[in-house]
Amino acid sequence: MDSLTVATPSKTEALARRYGADALPPAGPWNETIAVMLDHRSVRGYKPDPLPAGALETLIAAAQSAATSSNMQWWSAIAITDPAKKKVLAEIAGNQKHIEQCPVFLCWVADMARNQRISDATKTDFETMPWLETFMVACIDAALAAQNACVAAQSIGLRTVYIGAMRNDPIKVAELLGLPEQSFVVFGLCVGYATEKAAGEVKPRLPQATVLHREHYDASAEAEQRSTYDEEMSRFSARHELQAATWTQRVLNRLGPLKSMNGRETIRASLKKLGFEIR
Amino acid sequence: MDSLTVATPSKTEALARRYGADALPPAGPWNETIAVMLDHRSVRGYKPDPLPAGALETLIAAAQSAATSSNMQWWSAIAITDPAKKKVLAEIAGNQKHIEQCPVFLCWVADMARNQRISDATKTDFETMPWLETFMVACIDAALAAQNACVAAQSIGLRTVYIGAMRNDPIKVAELLGLPEQSFVVFGLCVGYATEKAAGEVKPRLPQATVLHREHYDASAEAEQRSTYDEEMSRFSARHELQAATWTQRVLNRLGPLKSMNGRETIRASLKKLGFEIR
Repeated sequence: MDSLTVATPSKTEALARRYGADALPPAGPWNETIAVMLDHRSVRGYKPDPLPAGALETLIAAAQSAATSSNMQWWSAIAITDPAKKKVLAEIAGNQKHIEQCPVFLCWVADMARNQRISDATKTDFETMPWLETFMVACIDAALAAQNACVAAQSIGLRTVYIGAMRNDPIKVAELLGLPEQSFVVFGLCVGYATEKAAGEVKPRLPQATVLHREHYDASAEAEQRSTYDEEMSRFSARHELQAATWTQRVLNRLGPLKSMNGRETIRASLKKLGFEIR
Repeated sequence: MDSLTVATPSKTEALARRYGADALPPAGPWNETIAVMLDHRSVRGYKPDPLPAGALETLIAAAQSAATSSNMQWWSAIAITDPAKKKVLAEIAGNQKHIEQCPVFLCWVADMARNQRISDATKTDFETMPWLETFMVACIDAALAAQNACVAAQSIGLRTVYIGAMRNDPIKVAELLGLPEQSFVVFGLCVGYATEKAAGEVKPRLPQATVLHREHYDASAEAEQRSTYDEEMSRFSARHELQAATWTQRVLNRLGPLKSMNGRETIRASLKKLGFEIR
């Protein structure tokens, strides 16, 4: 499996799946890489098959090839294959069984500890550390890296799903993985081969005109665009027997009540305990 | 230019460029998509040539295909081609001329305003909005999207560079682009064709063993690995006449003095003025 490409749909088909037939954007340049990205869906059911030899290293090479702010490389990844550890992580995440199922669960760490060790070793005060800016950059560096790994995985036939629920209890996760101060798991990523049942379908997104602005921010046509999207998502929801029919309803359910955060409103206090200042 | 692939180096060559010959990781599966990612470098000099027809839309389709937390789609992108606007943005960024040169400058917005409008329209209090967690998710959503756009751009022969310096003055950027409350430009992205002089070279990263941990965090061999990387970066710096010879020295320069933040230590206060609570 030295060189490997996956089957992907045509440009028109890919755009129709992503936006619905009623909101097709203009179709520009196209190639295999773009097709892989357009075909993304989050997969929540995995076969027990392991990753191909060297695949993890390839994913990390892709991740390290993403841009990183000032080359500070503010992230680490921890590959978890131990069933006992995955079980605990699945429980922290509200019993997401796919964390146990997937052969590799990658924990993406906003790792300010590594550069802090350079401060310690050289007895140099790093004045830039305790700020929201630096914390943000660490999280963003981790995200850019993870997204490259995600695309690389998909390009060789693997599937993934991000697990934000690692933030339900960042302290417990940090203890389990032996993280030093000033590091925490921003999110996890299940990696593996999708079961047939869980292979899923591309989820439609907001019309392009809603998210792409030109020269200045312009939301003047947004209500109408959202209505188009609500219809598209109603059809998607019906196909998948999802409760919230429209996207608008899903936003209301997710962002209205504090309880939908599963305790993550306390993350600031947890991060303080983990050594982050975030001034 | 309907279907387009770019020339990329072989697997061994690509890994050697990314890690140096002294720190080659095991070589796993390989394909065009992975080769494109491995070949990334940040480009700071652009030809005036415009993007191919439909390319911007293709980049945004790739961006919208990235995962987004609970499908809340917390981001917008603003495409800037207006020379006057690019000039102001270049000044904000400390006179980064490539912002003026590139045919399209994409501003990536952590856009909590869009979902806030659903709260307003439905007279539903969104209790989940004022927290660090939600702010982080918006920034991460923007980063995942931008990274897909970045890979898509590179796959069709374009080059990019992220501009974190949009955060030097988030209020001025917000005013220039007409952003509503609870939205800000997390970073910009120059997109265009590299000039021959600016095409650059892949920048080596830390050895894989430094960033990839197995089952638990382990930095026991880090000092030695960093020394290997310092040597690799010394050779890179010599080739490019960069001031800081080693990576360690660059970290000390960048993270030691507060002045290297160019005022970004005040971003918390600026974001408050832009309507973000970040509790």
